[in-house]
Amino acid sequence: MDRQNDKRAPPRVVVVGCGFGGLFAVRALKRSPVDVLVIDRNNYHLFQPLLYQVASAALTPADIAQPIRRILRNQRNANVMLGEVKRVALDERRVYVDTSPVAYDYLILAPGAVDNYFGHEEWREYAPGMKEIEEAIQIRSRLLLSFEAAEIEADPEERAAHLTFVIVGGGPTGVELAGAIKELAVDVIAQDFRFTDMRKARVVLIEASDRLLPAFHPESSRRALEQLRELGVEVRLGQPVTRVLPDGVEVGGERLRSRNVIWAAGVRASPLLDTLGIELSKGGRAKVERDCSLPGHPEVFVIGDAAQFVDPETGREVPGVSQGAIQMGRYVARVITEEVQGRKGLRERGFHYVDWGSMATVGKSRAVVEIGRMRFGGLLAWLAWMVLHITVLIGFRNRLGVIGEWVYNYVFFRRGSQLITGLSPAHPKELVTASAHGAGRGRR
Amino acid sequence: MDRQNDKRAPPRVVVVGCGFGGLFAVRALKRSPVDVLVIDRNNYHLFQPLLYQVASAALTPADIAQPIRRILRNQRNANVMLGEVKRVALDERRVYVDTSPVAYDYLILAPGAVDNYFGHEEWREYAPGMKEIEEAIQIRSRLLLSFEAAEIEADPEERAAHLTFVIVGGGPTGVELAGAIKELAVDVIAQDFRFTDMRKARVVLIEASDRLLPAFHPESSRRALEQLRELGVEVRLGQPVTRVLPDGVEVGGERLRSRNVIWAAGVRASPLLDTLGIELSKGGRAKVERDCSLPGHPEVFVIGDAAQFVDPETGREVPGVSQGAIQMGRYVARVITEEVQGRKGLRERGFHYVDWGSMATVGKSRAVVEIGRMRFGGLLAWLAWMVLHITVLIGFRNRLGVIGEWVYNYVFFRRGSQLITGLSPAHPKELVTASAHGAGRGRR
Repeated sequence: MDRQNDKRAPPRVVVVGCGFGGLFAVRALKRSPVDVLVIDRNNYHLFQPLLYQVASAALTPADIAQPIRRILRNQRNANVMLGEVKRVALDERRVYVDTSPVAYDYLILAPGAVDNYFGHEEWREYAPGMKEIEEAIQIRSRLLLSFEAAEIEADPEERAAHLTFVIVGGGPTGVELAGAIKELAVDVIAQDFRFTDMRKARVVLIEASDRLLPAFHPESSRRALEQLRELGVEVRLGQPVTRVLPDGVEVGGERLRSRNVIWAAGVRASPLLDTLGIELSKGGRAKVERDCSLPGHPEVFVIGDAAQFVDPETGREVPGVSQGAIQMGRYVARVITEEVQGRKGLRERGFHYVDWGSMATVGKSRAVVEIGRMRFGGLLAWLAWMVLHITVLIGFRNRLGVIGEWVYNYVFFRRGSQLITGLSPAHPKELVTASAHGAGRGRR
Repeated sequence: MDRQNDKRAPPRVVVVGCGFGGLFAVRALKRSPVDVLVIDRNNYHLFQPLLYQVASAALTPADIAQPIRRILRNQRNANVMLGEVKRVALDERRVYVDTSPVAYDYLILAPGAVDNYFGHEEWREYAPGMKEIEEAIQIRSRLLLSFEAAEIEADPEERAAHLTFVIVGGGPTGVELAGAIKELAVDVIAQDFRFTDMRKARVVLIEASDRLLPAFHPESSRRALEQLRELGVEVRLGQPVTRVLPDGVEVGGERLRSRNVIWAAGVRASPLLDTLGIELSKGGRAKVERDCSLPGHPEVFVIGDAAQFVDPETGREVPGVSQGAIQMGRYVARVITEEVQGRKGLRERGFHYVDWGSMATVGKSRAVVEIGRMRFGGLLAWLAWMVLHITVLIGFRNRLGVIGEWVYNYVFFRRGSQLITGLSPAHPKELVTASAHGAGRGRR
């Protein structure tokens, strides 16, 4: 690991995490005279903004994930390691992949965020979050199993519990998921069942604050609320969930029975940051300097959801969205390139976030879009969202596959992706046992 | 459950299992004056002949599986139940979905087959079979993790073990899988890694008998052998595997080290048949009458891999292939239709299997095909295989998606399907721990 002694070896940049921030940093280092090593727990980059579409059975995992090695195949100065970084030793200039040390000259930490249960880790079991592909597949399987259970359930109350879907958290993920689940029930699932009217499935979106999409302009919040209600989603504002139980939630003093609770109430930065031994922000993020580096460690950068960057001019924080991560990733890559080439300036000028706007979809033909002072909703917003996401996805996966499948599935609702997989064999069994008396309901 | 007393209710046909046999039986009952209930453990029909392509990261699960409810959406006399039939009570005319009874007037048992470890169930852990989507995903993840482990492994012997893939069993599944894995390593994976030459991955196909594809003509066996060797697959004939260990197999007195052993050595009928209380064939199959019914139970049919049907004219058994299951399924559906309509004849004439031929692929441009007395191999055979499978898959999934993705991926090797998912979080960790000293190999 004595890299420093070897004058001929180019500096090694270690990138931890290959989400948007990490990936765009690596790519921006393509022509830089450095060796890049990107380390990720998964062998793929995940297009996380569309993960809710896997959870709601609209897209398949392969539509929104791409092997990292494939993406970087032609970048000769980049190497990939599959593994989980457990610890950062700032003084040693090493990260530990389990017990195995990896030395760096520059370190870009882009480990992302995890679901935040705000001290109630025990809720995770009954209200899974949606940060990983496996979680999205689990949510998909649970959703689909609920419809199956409802179909054979004889007890009306129990059936209603199976057909009540509760989403906790009214940010973009919660809004998008609520709309997608309601549409799944009404437009797709309903035609597949004989005895139960799945269009009556209740989708309840619970937001603790007094409006949806708190990071958006209030006008967009109002539009999203309207559009969700048009779809038939029940929205509860100003009511925090006070308890998550095996069979529902407590909200506003009321008990809401549900067999499907999904957590979208907030994130905190990856626990990897805890190993830095520095003071972190409330959400577990690392407070970074104007150049995205750690105070006292100009060779270590933290970007994306894991960083708390406050713009000194506007006093505003860079939001935890893909654009923020991408821009930070590109910036730190350019700082490193500049430095190894003996140039100067970029680091001193600092990072500046350019807000390209925000968007969130509400089902198949509705969305809210904000670009600068421009705000609009409805079909036009949804078309803008479609064009942007398809443009990004094309080139991301293979062209024909995405155009064919994605547009076709998404627009025509022919979803070839409703597979119940990846559950323990015990699960479907439970489903039937719990409904023993209902078997063959309606057929006798 | 007193269906017999209700004169107005149409007879209920219960179909257990929605593989090829079950699905084609249900479909053939579409215009029959019966109520059909199909019960399956999974919510999808699986196009099993292509499961090896999921295991070898060429196709995604959604490419080869389709929700049963979707397939039967427009068949108004068919209903679907998700659940596992645990027991058949012939005297009660009921099947038990767990403890929950479901009455039938006619029963079609099509539960299929499971992997046969010939009394060595303990081998399953180290040599998984490939009958279910989850198993194929596991095999895929293990294959891909092996390449990752090899890349960071410093010890050459350990590296070789990671890059040795052993397939036990030289039937169609083994032959197809061996070719696909070798091609994955040479044509796809090799370009993604920097330090290890993955083209040197060893793929060893072990067959206990003296030729591959024992159910085919010897000429096809010879062709398959040649084509596999052209691809670089090592084929060992006449050598049974005598032991499966955590790190390899024993074969012909030799110990072959491998971190990837896959079981394709044989199947036996579903254990559900054990609950019938009748004498079964050696492979656990039910011996059926000329009309595919159980002796003494004209209302119960067993079809597909679960049935042992001997043609009284030729003395030959119907082979355990999709065509056999499909033809039996259609036949029993017609027998039932005839009977409920008060007609006669088909049951007495008995089932006759029409052999449309057999085919097996060996990689991307090689195959063996047998149609009647005609036998051919190579590119022509492969094209025949492609046309047939694409034709069947089209209409099976959505048209655009399959044409786009399948042809594109399969022909151009742009595989968007190499995701390592569905493993316990412990797995990648092991990978790294086992190779602690190799981290960053080649980079120091």
